[in-house]
Amino acid sequence: MTSALVTDFYELTMMQGYFLKHHNPRVVFDVFYRNNPFNGGYTVFTGIEEVISKLEEFRFSAEDIAYLESLNMFDREFLDYLAGYRFSGNVYAFDEGTPAFPGEPLVRVESTLMDCQLVEAFILNTLNFQTLIATKANRMVYATRGHGAIMEFGLRRAQGENGAHAASRAAFIGGTKVTSNTYAGKKYGIPVSGTMAHSWIMSFENEEEAFRQFASIYPDNAVLLIDTYDTLGSGIEAAIKIGLEQKAKGKKIGVRIDSGDLNYLPRVIRDRLDKAGLEDATICVSNDLTEEIIQTLVSDGVPIDSWGIGTHLVTGGTQSSLNGVYKLAAKEENGVFEPTLKVSNSFEKTTNPGIKQVYRFYDEHDNALADLITLDDEKVECGINHTFFHPFSMGDFFVMKKEAYKYARPLLSQKMKDGCRVSPQRSLVEIQSYAADSLSHLHKSYKRQINPHIYKVSLSRKLRDLKMNLILKVRGAE
Amino acid sequence: MTSALVTDFYELTMMQGYFLKHHNPRVVFDVFYRNNPFNGGYTVFTGIEEVISKLEEFRFSAEDIAYLESLNMFDREFLDYLAGYRFSGNVYAFDEGTPAFPGEPLVRVESTLMDCQLVEAFILNTLNFQTLIATKANRMVYATRGHGAIMEFGLRRAQGENGAHAASRAAFIGGTKVTSNTYAGKKYGIPVSGTMAHSWIMSFENEEEAFRQFASIYPDNAVLLIDTYDTLGSGIEAAIKIGLEQKAKGKKIGVRIDSGDLNYLPRVIRDRLDKAGLEDATICVSNDLTEEIIQTLVSDGVPIDSWGIGTHLVTGGTQSSLNGVYKLAAKEENGVFEPTLKVSNSFEKTTNPGIKQVYRFYDEHDNALADLITLDDEKVECGINHTFFHPFSMGDFFVMKKEAYKYARPLLSQKMKDGCRVSPQRSLVEIQSYAADSLSHLHKSYKRQINPHIYKVSLSRKLRDLKMNLILKVRGAE
Repeated sequence: MTSALVTDFYELTMMQGYFLKHHNPRVVFDVFYRNNPFNGGYTVFTGIEEVISKLEEFRFSAEDIAYLESLNMFDREFLDYLAGYRFSGNVYAFDEGTPAFPGEPLVRVESTLMDCQLVEAFILNTLNFQTLIATKANRMVYATRGHGAIMEFGLRRAQGENGAHAASRAAFIGGTKVTSNTYAGKKYGIPVSGTMAHSWIMSFENEEEAFRQFASIYPDNAVLLIDTYDTLGSGIEAAIKIGLEQKAKGKKIGVRIDSGDLNYLPRVIRDRLDKAGLEDATICVSNDLTEEIIQTLVSDGVPIDSWGIGTHLVTGGTQSSLNGVYKLAAKEENGVFEPTLKVSNSFEKTTNPGIKQVYRFYDEHDNALADLITLDDEKVECGINHTFFHPFSMGDFFVMKKEAYKYARPLLSQKMKDGCRVSPQRSLVEIQSYAADSLSHLHKSYKRQINPHIYKVSLSRKLRDLKMNLILKVRGAE
Repeated sequence: MTSALVTDFYELTMMQGYFLKHHNPRVVFDVFYRNNPFNGGYTVFTGIEEVISKLEEFRFSAEDIAYLESLNMFDREFLDYLAGYRFSGNVYAFDEGTPAFPGEPLVRVESTLMDCQLVEAFILNTLNFQTLIATKANRMVYATRGHGAIMEFGLRRAQGENGAHAASRAAFIGGTKVTSNTYAGKKYGIPVSGTMAHSWIMSFENEEEAFRQFASIYPDNAVLLIDTYDTLGSGIEAAIKIGLEQKAKGKKIGVRIDSGDLNYLPRVIRDRLDKAGLEDATICVSNDLTEEIIQTLVSDGVPIDSWGIGTHLVTGGTQSSLNGVYKLAAKEENGVFEPTLKVSNSFEKTTNPGIKQVYRFYDEHDNALADLITLDDEKVECGINHTFFHPFSMGDFFVMKKEAYKYARPLLSQKMKDGCRVSPQRSLVEIQSYAADSLSHLHKSYKRQINPHIYKVSLSRKLRDLKMNLILKVRGAE
């Protein structure tokens, strides 16, 4: 069970308001974010499978109700209602692992106002963080250009226990290969891995003895940490000695470098290993790595076989949150959904009204070309031209000619109906592989670390016109 | 129960190594960090009470053992040992809420090597994150200079669920007054609070109706969100109307501004409220606030009564992790603890060896003057001069004259003995109040946002000499 107390308190006070006033129309909320994190060109939409699983069991325990009662702010009748509460909404969302872009409705929640309101913070908490981390991980994976797997080692620097577990999950979806977080390994089925700590070395007489002992227990998995005392002195010397002993037994070793100049040391180490006849020994590096550092090391041709990454990967580093929001898009009046919008002094921040769908247009090689946000009841036919309107620069548009694209597919599909999952549950490995495949169909210009190309997300003509008409009405234009 | 799988996988493989090699001496590990976060002058040490409570119940469930078995890396005998595992170490630590500084041993864990190793990542995960957030919160509280309480509203932007709950706890210790996170309210006894969302407004016919309905249910707590459509137009007008209706009933209102220029809008709003006769209406602001923004608003005299803060408060914003580490300080040989140290190519990063204590020196007004790290068996007497050696610039020192200080007190005290808590458990309110009191005895020059004064943390002569002698020995100097 997920405690339904994982909600902002104002949701509960508002909910009681709706309850007492018998004001509980059906409504539609959208989740979207406004800017790509890390000055990047995309995100990897992540967390929705956890959202679905947890919404299915989002409940108030008797203890939760007793706590709320103790606050002396809630009516008995309302508390009784909460005691029997279960989420009963319809949820539409992008598939987990889909590349996503600013302004797109990634999730659409349709239910009563009370129901939609209660789950807001929980949904945003999960999606904002996991999408942030999957994106960070994918940026790092992309920076390796295929040179070496990334091992996620972030537990000790993550934001709380669940911050660590959720980060391990999201990083894996973004393309990391293993985690050091054993609990996440068990919970999500992520392969676990690790090398050794400096304290292992320091607990023995010297490095040679420490390495030998380790290799005797883990002959197939001996990655030796060589920077405890003197990387290019006693460290590599002892590693070569043990490496040769292991080689005589038909086993390989690896070395890990956790400090110093990671552009220089691996070159020297590689040379020393090769000259000793240990050409198959691998080199792992770690120490506050970022995607910028990885890209530099890779483009400089530094011989690195794997990357151990913690801090920046599991927290986002200098950008530690995604600004995803949850906004009212439609409200039932007299039995039909009427579009709503939240205006703002800046038109750029005015929300897109109504119940919407997103179509991704592809060329004949399945490469993504651009996305079109439409009203849900619009038909988007193939083989005809479509006009794509800029989401807020109202005079800007382009025509997607019928020759320029092969097909378009809708990205929002139903995940929950009346509070129950209706989409098949996918394993983490399936999601990871779907994400990798989807991202491979996104042109590399969108993945550049600096000044990426901006992927076009546009409005259909109908949606654009609805938005403009509504804003004129709401702001009282004549 | 806290699952003991919340550990880096290499701790388990190393642990099995120690187990199989019967290599399990008693050891001492220190927790310390190297740099203050946020370019600040201090941290608020936080998280230790949670560490103690969870270490008491750090166990492998049958399910955990089955998972480890499934990895085919562990011996049956070792798994049986883990199945019966409980933490049995001695833990010494600073009291939670104590101002702390780089290089200080904040926690000392003394147990067998296997025991100490297993708990490393869990301890660091908890302390690194909670100390980061308590410090961030305290910087924000300090920036208000007493002008208005801070409400923590971070759930939707926090890093995972537990990232949110732990952040709420830590922020409260740092000095925030309430949280929006209902679960954290229940779990930790933090007062919960909230106002209303834009969706509340949008679900009614207009703002006036939405405000009236809200005030009728929460007459004592009606903080009206006025920026849904037009802050200085319909928003404030409706709020004043409802404010006057409430005033006629002897009730006060508040308004919240969640967008726009927070330096300009509150001045105009204050003026409008005052002119309407609502001098007692309060103004709450929110929207991506940082300590720098708070300080500017306060020093500009903007009339603000409370602050709603989420993102930066609960994630640390641009600095999202504290670099706390866990390093071997001593190892038993022939029945006595021998000091150890981890050398580094840079002396600055070489650890301080041995079992240590930290003394904080105070003047006659109980103001903190400087800290001295000593060996644990040194006597630090009052009424005599003490020489303070720079922690890595070996020629730098100063003499703390007996006239300059009144007393010194040790900061590390025993929290656990043989795996059981031996210190009284304190409530969160007690910890918050201890933190506020301790911080009030730290001179404001250490709390400046930019270029704070550096609080001196020094080594005693004995510790300095031990460190230098050990490093000469380890690196083979003649």
